[in-house]
Amino acid sequence: MKNMLRIAQVAPLYESVPPKLYGGTERVVAYLTDELVNQGHAVTLFASGDSITKARLVAISPHALRLHNHLDPLAYHILQLQEVFERTNEFDILHFHTDYLHFPFSSSNSITTITTLHGRLDIDDLKPIYEKFDNVPVVSISDAQREPLPMANWIGTVYHGLPFDLYKKGEGKGDYVTFIGRISPEKRADRAIEIARQANIKIKIAAKIDKADQSYFEKEIRHLFKLPHVEFLGEVGEIEKAELLRNAVAMLFPIDWREPFGIVLIEALACGTPVIAYNHGSVPEVITHKKTGFVVENINEAVNALKHINHINRDECRASFENRFSAGIMVKNYVQLYEKLLYSREKELAGLSMND
Amino acid sequence: MKNMLRIAQVAPLYESVPPKLYGGTERVVAYLTDELVNQGHAVTLFASGDSITKARLVAISPHALRLHNHLDPLAYHILQLQEVFERTNEFDILHFHTDYLHFPFSSSNSITTITTLHGRLDIDDLKPIYEKFDNVPVVSISDAQREPLPMANWIGTVYHGLPFDLYKKGEGKGDYVTFIGRISPEKRADRAIEIARQANIKIKIAAKIDKADQSYFEKEIRHLFKLPHVEFLGEVGEIEKAELLRNAVAMLFPIDWREPFGIVLIEALACGTPVIAYNHGSVPEVITHKKTGFVVENINEAVNALKHINHINRDECRASFENRFSAGIMVKNYVQLYEKLLYSREKELAGLSMND
Repeated sequence: MKNMLRIAQVAPLYESVPPKLYGGTERVVAYLTDELVNQGHAVTLFASGDSITKARLVAISPHALRLHNHLDPLAYHILQLQEVFERTNEFDILHFHTDYLHFPFSSSNSITTITTLHGRLDIDDLKPIYEKFDNVPVVSISDAQREPLPMANWIGTVYHGLPFDLYKKGEGKGDYVTFIGRISPEKRADRAIEIARQANIKIKIAAKIDKADQSYFEKEIRHLFKLPHVEFLGEVGEIEKAELLRNAVAMLFPIDWREPFGIVLIEALACGTPVIAYNHGSVPEVITHKKTGFVVENINEAVNALKHINHINRDECRASFENRFSAGIMVKNYVQLYEKLLYSREKELAGLSMND
Repeated sequence: MKNMLRIAQVAPLYESVPPKLYGGTERVVAYLTDELVNQGHAVTLFASGDSITKARLVAISPHALRLHNHLDPLAYHILQLQEVFERTNEFDILHFHTDYLHFPFSSSNSITTITTLHGRLDIDDLKPIYEKFDNVPVVSISDAQREPLPMANWIGTVYHGLPFDLYKKGEGKGDYVTFIGRISPEKRADRAIEIARQANIKIKIAAKIDKADQSYFEKEIRHLFKLPHVEFLGEVGEIEKAELLRNAVAMLFPIDWREPFGIVLIEALACGTPVIAYNHGSVPEVITHKKTGFVVENINEAVNALKHINHINRDECRASFENRFSAGIMVKNYVQLYEKLLYSREKELAGLSMND
């Protein structure tokens, strides 16, 4: 028998849910929220007013904060906390996606809360707060993400998931590899270009260039875009991205940082496209070496992997997506954690009343 | 009969209390805290670990956050909230100087809180939060500061105060006027220079140039510093500033924004130095026209005021400081508000128990 839960999803307000353009956290919250509704739960989404959701929407700011010129976005997030905590009696559980902002409430309030940490955690300023709030249950988006904060109250890892039919399997007949992401020092488009050059294959690059990365782009990358095997597409929409992935022989992901979870990895898998990725952060958890791609340590290994890319079965890539990274799986994993927390809370309360 | 109160002072963590260099809020918190201790109250200061205080110090961050390269200063302020709210039973009242961050706690917690708003409030993003939290008692640092947020629960205005003996009266025999502050478009050093030029008097400028204002400085101000009647001293320490003020014929304060409270105004008065100030923000509340200076609307009026500066009695300036802007007066005003809040809270509780 399945329990219907009354769930609050608390999203950041920087982007709408789902985001109009870029915004990994808000995108995942959108998939999670809609799929929870699909599975029969009563969900309320606390988000910016231009969000579109199957859940009940409580609009905090009239629109996403990032696209407008807001001097004080924190004010809306504090307002959001109040809106959430005024309604605790309407919910079984509050699911936060807004970092640590609510921790003092969660630790003093009797309502059950769960918090997914979406960002990088290798920042020294975070240590004291996770030492202090070692009772607040938090969820990682990969096991690797936890490393800098072993003292936090980790109750599980839930990988991101995409709607089952968002991407369809392609056959990779395009005779090119692809690189998708931002042009930034951590993403290493330069490495991807060099890998493709040595493997003598064309590379199509779909990437945005943030203002913050403009000078890096000018210095390190722009001249590489003139190489004959490189095609730069700029920032692409969802449909172009799907097309690009489905026809790619492989996706290159030669990152230089501990990315907590690369959504583009599971987009590739959903398209049946194997991934050649550097061994950092969540990569070895998401990509199964020699099965859904290759986890490599350097350019040589990456070039070598490209030579053996036909050993990877594209059906297996798609199957890995369906079995591990669909929105349905993500929701199943979260609901398990919700129930675990609610069950231990019930036991705790029962224990208390016996001692009273 | 005087009540000894148990008071928590909650300071921002960006600067130490008092600040090593610039930092208006932390400076006022330092004066307030020490003077409360002087007057016999039991005070605990929640601040950065390099703070120096007569009160009991609860160190939140090891040092002031601004002077080090902190990626996530908000984390320490959330930690601070928790440290404060874990200790509510130790206090009669919590006095916050950290904007709205704690409002959700204050409105849900039974402890009495009071919040001084130190910053500018003419920011649209603030409106929704003050509409929501119209029950949280807040204090303005001038009546003018309140204008953009009439919906807030204003319970009083308390002007900033300085220790009685921090500055001594001078005689203004220096044959110059002075401008003290930042070089920024709101402060209008250019106007001060023009006023002095037209009045045919030397001007000594003590000001820091923030990175953010560097291009404004280059474009609008640098060439003015070459004028023969202008002397630029850079950023000066406390002792040089006192000397500069005491010997000045007048201080010029030709601001172009609604400054909620200009501490330098009361520094001038403490030195017996009259102020010629533009009619913006708190200026007409702090400077008594024709008594402690002149409140003017334009350069002509300022030049004219300088011609009549001898009509201002420097003893009267110092007396205005002593009677309205000393730390002792500030503490008296705050303690009155503390007691008012505690008294109405007691009445409320008594009322509740009668109805029970």
